[in-house]
Amino acid sequence: MSYTPRERMVYGAMQLLRARGATGTGVRDVVAYAKAPRGSFQHYFPGGKDQLVSEAVLWAADFAAERVRSYRRSARNPTPSGLFAHMARQWKQDFTERGYARGCPIMAAAADLVGTDSPVTAELRSGIGRWEATVADELSAMDVPPRRAKRLATLMISTLEGAIMSARLHGDVGPLTTVVAELGPLLDS
Amino acid sequence: MSYTPRERMVYGAMQLLRARGATGTGVRDVVAYAKAPRGSFQHYFPGGKDQLVSEAVLWAADFAAERVRSYRRSARNPTPSGLFAHMARQWKQDFTERGYARGCPIMAAAADLVGTDSPVTAELRSGIGRWEATVADELSAMDVPPRRAKRLATLMISTLEGAIMSARLHGDVGPLTTVVAELGPLLDS
Repeated sequence: MSYTPRERMVYGAMQLLRARGATGTGVRDVVAYAKAPRGSFQHYFPGGKDQLVSEAVLWAADFAAERVRSYRRSARNPTPSGLFAHMARQWKQDFTERGYARGCPIMAAAADLVGTDSPVTAELRSGIGRWEATVADELSAMDVPPRRAKRLATLMISTLEGAIMSARLHGDVGPLTTVVAELGPLLDS
Repeated sequence: MSYTPRERMVYGAMQLLRARGATGTGVRDVVAYAKAPRGSFQHYFPGGKDQLVSEAVLWAADFAAERVRSYRRSARNPTPSGLFAHMARQWKQDFTERGYARGCPIMAAAADLVGTDSPVTAELRSGIGRWEATVADELSAMDVPPRRAKRLATLMISTLEGAIMSARLHGDVGPLTTVVAELGPLLDS
């Protein structure tokens, strides 16, 4: 697969902000990361860095949602605890293979931007909303009643996000393993 | 109570990074926030911004730990779920009274700095370690076996941190209410 310079910039922004935060990610670094022609940035992103970061977090949210949907297609006997383990496994794999420098791009952008008047906050809200709705839909497809599915989706995403932060701080996947084991019985009950 | 300029700078750094992240918090802003004499910063913090941010996150971690310890002193019949509700209540109150601009300083610093070579990461690890140990100690004092207490502390702090992020994104304390209600029975079982 080959990506356009525009796609590489969105992907690059997402990867850089995972490691450095939104404020620490400069447009110049993204252009360099994407090996995009200098001067092309303004052409592709007339809305500037806000537009770039918005697209990066929405890309990430859709990636997360697709990861959630992939579980039921591959699982022989899908369960809510199995879905949560599947969501956490991706992070354990990433940390084990690539180290702890890169966290969740949604958390990175939220930490830097929600407290400012950034227009990216609305996109972040929409991104996490889509991810939560996907988890709730998948739980409903496993016969969890809709209201409970929504509550469990909130619990799963909150716990996953916090455990990602904790794993990065400790430089250890232990927190992810622990929350999967502890939440499992509750999710399936 | 009156605070020294040095104390006001540590507190100010903590408040500013909660809203703007670690990268977005400038020393100049902190000095202005603290109404400290210009030029005093270098005197109080020879280690520069790294020292200031390190002290701010350790201050926050100790504040969180003290909040955890305060529960058992005030509760008539302390339970693990009661402790978790107590931890979340502080955030619900803060968001309700002061809005959603300011999140958890540990998350803010972690999101910006763990992926860099910042020396603050070691202090962040130590800070969250102290907070986790305090939660585990309090659970042990409620007769939770030590190994399980450690696991539940990881679960509680992960879930709380993620729910804080989610509450800020949605501009609603709902995620905090939901995780407290959902985790309660598991924590007490």
